[in-house]
Amino acid sequence: MAVVLAARAAVFSDGRYTLQLESETDGEIWTRLHMIETPPETWLRENAAGLRIGYDPWLISADGLKKFVGVELVPVDGNPVDAIWSDRPAPPMAPAVPHDVLYAGEDAAAKRSRLAELLREAGQDAAVLTDPASIAWLFNLRGADVEFTPIALGFAILNADATATLFMADGKLPAETRSHLGNEVAIAEPNRLAEELGRLAGRTVRYDPTAMPVWFKTTLEAAGATIAEAPDPVALPRARKNGIEQEGARAAHLRDGVAMVRFLSWLARAAPLGGETEMSATAKLLQFRSMGAQFRGESFPAISGAGEHGAIIHYRVSPESNRPIKPDEVYLIDSGAQYTDGTTDITRTVWTGPGAAPIAVKDHLTRVLSGHIALSTAVFPEGVAGVHLDALARGALWQAGLDYDHGTGHGVGSYLSVHEGPAGISRAAKSVPLQPGMILSNEPGYYLPGAYGIRMENLQLVQEAPFSANARKFLRFETLTLAPFDRALIEPDLLPTAALRWLNEYHARVRDMLSPMLTHGDDGETLAWLQAATAPI
Amino acid sequence: MAVVLAARAAVFSDGRYTLQLESETDGEIWTRLHMIETPPETWLRENAAGLRIGYDPWLISADGLKKFVGVELVPVDGNPVDAIWSDRPAPPMAPAVPHDVLYAGEDAAAKRSRLAELLREAGQDAAVLTDPASIAWLFNLRGADVEFTPIALGFAILNADATATLFMADGKLPAETRSHLGNEVAIAEPNRLAEELGRLAGRTVRYDPTAMPVWFKTTLEAAGATIAEAPDPVALPRARKNGIEQEGARAAHLRDGVAMVRFLSWLARAAPLGGETEMSATAKLLQFRSMGAQFRGESFPAISGAGEHGAIIHYRVSPESNRPIKPDEVYLIDSGAQYTDGTTDITRTVWTGPGAAPIAVKDHLTRVLSGHIALSTAVFPEGVAGVHLDALARGALWQAGLDYDHGTGHGVGSYLSVHEGPAGISRAAKSVPLQPGMILSNEPGYYLPGAYGIRMENLQLVQEAPFSANARKFLRFETLTLAPFDRALIEPDLLPTAALRWLNEYHARVRDMLSPMLTHGDDGETLAWLQAATAPI
Repeated sequence: MAVVLAARAAVFSDGRYTLQLESETDGEIWTRLHMIETPPETWLRENAAGLRIGYDPWLISADGLKKFVGVELVPVDGNPVDAIWSDRPAPPMAPAVPHDVLYAGEDAAAKRSRLAELLREAGQDAAVLTDPASIAWLFNLRGADVEFTPIALGFAILNADATATLFMADGKLPAETRSHLGNEVAIAEPNRLAEELGRLAGRTVRYDPTAMPVWFKTTLEAAGATIAEAPDPVALPRARKNGIEQEGARAAHLRDGVAMVRFLSWLARAAPLGGETEMSATAKLLQFRSMGAQFRGESFPAISGAGEHGAIIHYRVSPESNRPIKPDEVYLIDSGAQYTDGTTDITRTVWTGPGAAPIAVKDHLTRVLSGHIALSTAVFPEGVAGVHLDALARGALWQAGLDYDHGTGHGVGSYLSVHEGPAGISRAAKSVPLQPGMILSNEPGYYLPGAYGIRMENLQLVQEAPFSANARKFLRFETLTLAPFDRALIEPDLLPTAALRWLNEYHARVRDMLSPMLTHGDDGETLAWLQAATAPI
Repeated sequence: MAVVLAARAAVFSDGRYTLQLESETDGEIWTRLHMIETPPETWLRENAAGLRIGYDPWLISADGLKKFVGVELVPVDGNPVDAIWSDRPAPPMAPAVPHDVLYAGEDAAAKRSRLAELLREAGQDAAVLTDPASIAWLFNLRGADVEFTPIALGFAILNADATATLFMADGKLPAETRSHLGNEVAIAEPNRLAEELGRLAGRTVRYDPTAMPVWFKTTLEAAGATIAEAPDPVALPRARKNGIEQEGARAAHLRDGVAMVRFLSWLARAAPLGGETEMSATAKLLQFRSMGAQFRGESFPAISGAGEHGAIIHYRVSPESNRPIKPDEVYLIDSGAQYTDGTTDITRTVWTGPGAAPIAVKDHLTRVLSGHIALSTAVFPEGVAGVHLDALARGALWQAGLDYDHGTGHGVGSYLSVHEGPAGISRAAKSVPLQPGMILSNEPGYYLPGAYGIRMENLQLVQEAPFSANARKFLRFETLTLAPFDRALIEPDLLPTAALRWLNEYHARVRDMLSPMLTHGDDGETLAWLQAATAPI
């Protein structure tokens, strides 16, 4: 965020971008601040008391605005940066295409009808949707407007009679898509948004004050609509994957597992010799993934961190930062893929060899693995949220006075965003109960700055647990991700008996599921590697 | 809660009092409702739309009032029930006495000064205190106005200059107490409260909208004061026991442990013979506790539940419900005491014998114990709250599809209320980080209706963990309660190795701490019993 006053200016970021701010902004002009330590609202209170401060109502939510007390905030009509941004790229215009019901598992009309009933029950006449992933889910559309996430940018209004208006540039909607949308969905150019919101005068309109631009709220209120504050109605249904989406996720993870074991097997041979780099490794992994059916691209930029780079949690390798993967060090690779039937996200941490790993590294990794398994094997009643389970993944680290500074798990979409709400597993997560069909990551880690990073990540599907005798429903996780954890870094004596049993059973399942898929002529080495990598401990 | 309309009336309670409501109210007049399923605000919306409804502003908080939407609520001047309550007992008039700094560990003037600084830092001129336990802590006073909790009823205003006004009836304040309060504390009759609040015109006054009667807010606002919404400033300092209070808690638990093992040893001999009852057992326990130095009474009515009564979580034995403690059944006793130096709360579940306990009971109890130990041995970084740790105490039960319908832990005062905020351990607990000096209960359970109840409760003191190498502070629990868990109900094969080790170490500590205290002439049997009850498993 940036604040520009008549005589001075400040720019705010969290700790991840502190160095970048320093190298990319002019310190003569900009005061650079850590937005947790000195948030914009505090800086404004201290430096602009009594002043009128303009803001762009498209760039801040209604709740976000509430933090600014002690200064007068005035919405501006048109962003002043846009006014001087002469070389601004044109908006993306990739076509929005239908997402086949064979993958979506539910017809778009049925989705609209189901959500419209929710709106009627809540006494709401319409809901405004501003999250492109919500629009993609609701209309069974996928796009290519941004990298890594198959969404088409736009807005929508869903009415309580199950009709809808989709605001999307005409050029992005081929005939096939128009026909797919059907005649209950009106199509409008995005510049008609204010006009269409104006038609909601006298109606009660659902609006999420935590996530949607305040512009929608003020426009609706000015038009005479009543605001009903409530979360995006799509978020929860989207998170609860249906049976077809669950099957798709399993199939996608099987293909992704094949790519991962080909990659890990290749790495096990290449790494001890040296010669590979962080970038060459990601290229190799992408090549293996591209061989899989229905592969549509990566789901995020791979984090490929050798040695000390692994300790940078959001490390993104660049030609400047690229470094060799050396023998006898720790290498961390966090990556994922988009397949038409599902989205993947997996992290593995390996010892490059050929020597043995130091006991300290094995101790750290085994504690991370112990936490990963404790969360994997959790059983819990309905009503429990991720905030209640986060400590399970940290317990073994905490016992040694260690921890990691990131959440334990995030929701994952179905051929959609690799980060999706509303549920998550972290100390700060909203108390959204976990529900059958949700897909969440399980990714505890440990980072020793300047030395190495460890993270162990699988995706897990929430399932009902088979306790038929109980009136109360219990839930548990089904692990979707299929790839071995590096045995060279595991210290079996540090794992509780039940955890070691889980690990051996998981490795046996990985071997049994993936071996029949390794049918290429050059898969012989991969099969042999997989056999050894999954042998019981 | 009760609502009386011109033509009908409704009374609301939670599930604990459903039967009592039916037997003690007239169904011709009162509609009896479950206040979770049909809360008063819902009933009013459905039955009193458009009506003006009077309410007593002393009986509802500012936040509590906000729930009532769709009806017009009008504060009444004087409660109409009081107007017809001709045989109302006089207010209690027990004297308020000084709580010696030898137990409190901090002079009352120092406490006022410390809190006044907090108020100044927050830009507040004064704080209103309505919780008698906060007043007791702040002024180092104890009273006897209510059973079980040594408080004196009253109100207080703490000013940002560390002066205060205590609103308490003249007859409750002996000369010694007046002298103890000193000349920085003005004393006023409670009926002068409105007048004194009126003097805060133009000042910023701290008020807790979740807990304090809305009367204070409207009175302050009418007087021209500005409300600063914030929690009771005493709650957190009161919860963080100082070194002297911690020493007092250890001493009180030692004495309480002596009473408990005399009781458990007596019970182990008496129970297999039959002839004792739920009431005779609590009388016996009270007799043993009364022998301890500084004993001031019970901290709550003991829950003494044999067999199926143990499954009633809030069971309170009465002459009508009293039943024999029979051989070969489960007996649960949850009790506590007030000592001048500390408050105790302990639950033990025993098998009465002489036969062996069924394996199903042992399975249930060992799962509860496993959860109890998992929480006892937790290590966690600063910032973690009880809401994050609750699952640890439930994990072993959840694995079998079992759970308990109550919180895992509550704060405990220092010779004050046995239930104290702001921290707690439950899924619904507020996210108040645990801090060194807090005393919390650890009391998982399992209840099989109609058969038996199991609960295992110790009090635990939050302490800093000794990880000197880390910049981040870690915390852990010190177990205060000293009494064996019944070996006859523990199935060692179901306990993780580390948990069994903790149990044996705990039992050894109980034996080593209590044996030297068992010096009465008739303690021989208790000593022998303690030796056997704490033998390694």
